Amino acid sequence: MDEFASIRHWTDGRQAAERLREQGVVIGIGDDAAVVEAPPGPGEGGALQWVLAVDTMVETVHFNTATMGEADVGWKALAANVSDIAAMGGVPRHALVSVSVPRAWEPARMRRLYDGLYACAEHYGVAVVGGDTTSSPAQLVVSVTVVGTVAAGKAISRAGAKPGDVVFVTGPLGLSAAGLHWLLAAVHGGEEAVPLTAAQAGGTAALVQAHRRPAPSVRAAQLLAARGTVTSLNDVSDGLASEAWEIANASEAKLALRETQLPISGSLAAYAHRCGLDPLDWLLYGGEDYVLLGTMNAEDAAVAKSAMTAAGMPMYLIGTVEAGAPGVELIRIDSRLGGGTGRYAERREPIRPRGYNHFA
Amino acid sequence: MDEFASIRHWTDGRQAAERLREQGVVIGIGDDAAVVEAPPGPGEGGALQWVLAVDTMVETVHFNTATMGEADVGWKALAANVSDIAAMGGVPRHALVSVSVPRAWEPARMRRLYDGLYACAEHYGVAVVGGDTTSSPAQLVVSVTVVGTVAAGKAISRAGAKPGDVVFVTGPLGLSAAGLHWLLAAVHGGEEAVPLTAAQAGGTAALVQAHRRPAPSVRAAQLLAARGTVTSLNDVSDGLASEAWEIANASEAKLALRETQLPISGSLAAYAHRCGLDPLDWLLYGGEDYVLLGTMNAEDAAVAKSAMTAAGMPMYLIGTVEAGAPGVELIRIDSRLGGGTGRYAERREPIRPRGYNHFA
Repeated sequence: MDEFASIRHWTDGRQAAERLREQGVVIGIGDDAAVVEAPPGPGEGGALQWVLAVDTMVETVHFNTATMGEADVGWKALAANVSDIAAMGGVPRHALVSVSVPRAWEPARMRRLYDGLYACAEHYGVAVVGGDTTSSPAQLVVSVTVVGTVAAGKAISRAGAKPGDVVFVTGPLGLSAAGLHWLLAAVHGGEEAVPLTAAQAGGTAALVQAHRRPAPSVRAAQLLAARGTVTSLNDVSDGLASEAWEIANASEAKLALRETQLPISGSLAAYAHRCGLDPLDWLLYGGEDYVLLGTMNAEDAAVAKSAMTAAGMPMYLIGTVEAGAPGVELIRIDSRLGGGTGRYAERREPIRPRGYNHFA
Repeated sequence: MDEFASIRHWTDGRQAAERLREQGVVIGIGDDAAVVEAPPGPGEGGALQWVLAVDTMVETVHFNTATMGEADVGWKALAANVSDIAAMGGVPRHALVSVSVPRAWEPARMRRLYDGLYACAEHYGVAVVGGDTTSSPAQLVVSVTVVGTVAAGKAISRAGAKPGDVVFVTGPLGLSAAGLHWLLAAVHGGEEAVPLTAAQAGGTAALVQAHRRPAPSVRAAQLLAARGTVTSLNDVSDGLASEAWEIANASEAKLALRETQLPISGSLAAYAHRCGLDPLDWLLYGGEDYVLLGTMNAEDAAVAKSAMTAAGMPMYLIGTVEAGAPGVELIRIDSRLGGGTGRYAERREPIRPRGYNHFA
């Protein structure tokens, strides 16, 4: 375990001094604790509050050696927390990394894990300021804490959805779960991560990438939060159904989602078709999408969507908030009622708060 | 895993609203992330910086079911981080808790773990603001992050020791390692934690308590930091030798420790005598003491010690900082040279930076 004795071994020289300065790092990795301050620079006028999140990934529970490479684990462990900060309307700034390393691991595997983690950190401008490395009797456990900032009083919780609001998401859903489905089927007992080339050959590269390298909606969160019209915000870590229920419960309102508005990507539709499965199951219950689900004033929704499109980001308006007991409903088209007339009826199905069950 | 699905199950109603308010908690457990601000109230005038630390405890690496009860694990996982914040001169304020729970665990065990964690949180005034609960295939893994504050520019690193400074510690050393030694010998293959009554009968209760319920020197750190004369500070998590080396390396100085000044408690001396072992080994290399090791201006050391005593806290002046290549030396009495004359000679032994090896 000597190679793993100090996190410094994996972290020395990985980030430029400019990155650390830009994020207000006073003392970084290497002391008992890190010391940080409100970052300097323009755009930070006014009081700040601090946003704190932790997320843990456990081998055999959230991934295995076939579904994720070490670099993927590093990327995703940080990305999941970056997504939580974005879901409060915050800017991610500092990360602390705790890794419990199986005794059998080669040092090169830890190096790759940190490669992925630092790639994600650089992508989102996050300064890695500390950590703890311990040995683990069997499985890899990676726990990351991210600290971010938000303008004082401007954090967006789950609790503000109001009847009449529009429900939106900032990206397609279900890809990660479908990617995992393909990966688990592609595994042939090997210890190595299934190569992305195999997914490219199988037409599922986008799904596998969504599972391994999720891209949290940090910029979308900033753009939307700045409008002042977002009333609730969650990131989709446990699946649309589960997250919509969290907003519904916290806001004491009903979310009515329209099936026809749900974003089903071409990759997802094609793979579901090939498998003879309903993509809606992945979309509603899959989880680990790390896009944002939120509600906003209806008057601003169309303009916000235009602004998002102009900034190069997708936004889907998928339903409305209604008064009533907390709940989530899916409005579906009942094609059986058309009877060749071209007319159709709608029906409402209650959606259960079932979430993502990892590998269960 | 349904009982473990949400950290809220273990955390609801555990802390008074007053505690959360006092620590500046804006949004606590239950959303994507917590939001906190500089705590209100007197004594906080001036700019603050934020102090961040993470520490992880792994079953079979740092403890097992015989050496620690669940509540002990909860207490110690938080205490280790509280100690890191204290070692920067900071005040611990907020905690995030990640627990990976073995599938076989009864819900009552998680409840006890949180009992211990919250007991420690209340003792140190820390607000638990978030966390993540996942399942674990086999071992319990507890990772805690603590966020604290320090007056801007006043954090005390390892790097400021200067020749002429006095070396001090804020409590006795080696107790935790001796307690673990007794616990490992007392284990008879049972799954239950060795009861404290057995340690009381064996005269080792103080050692076992030091191992299971370490009491970080938060108040001592505050009192000492306020004097403005402390030049470096570390907490003794990996043993005196290892921590002294960290200060020596970071400060580019030599630490000369006097054996006759090292604080050996009565319990430690008695137990070492009974085992026929040298207490110095536990004291230098034992670790997990969570007292503070530091250096300070020599002129202030005696006054600081009086102030500490007046405030009801121990402080031991154990050596001096010398110029020279980074290193740690122990000044020992060479009794062989006395020859019945009552006179003695000193000799210096280099101390290796060997640290605590957990259960290895």
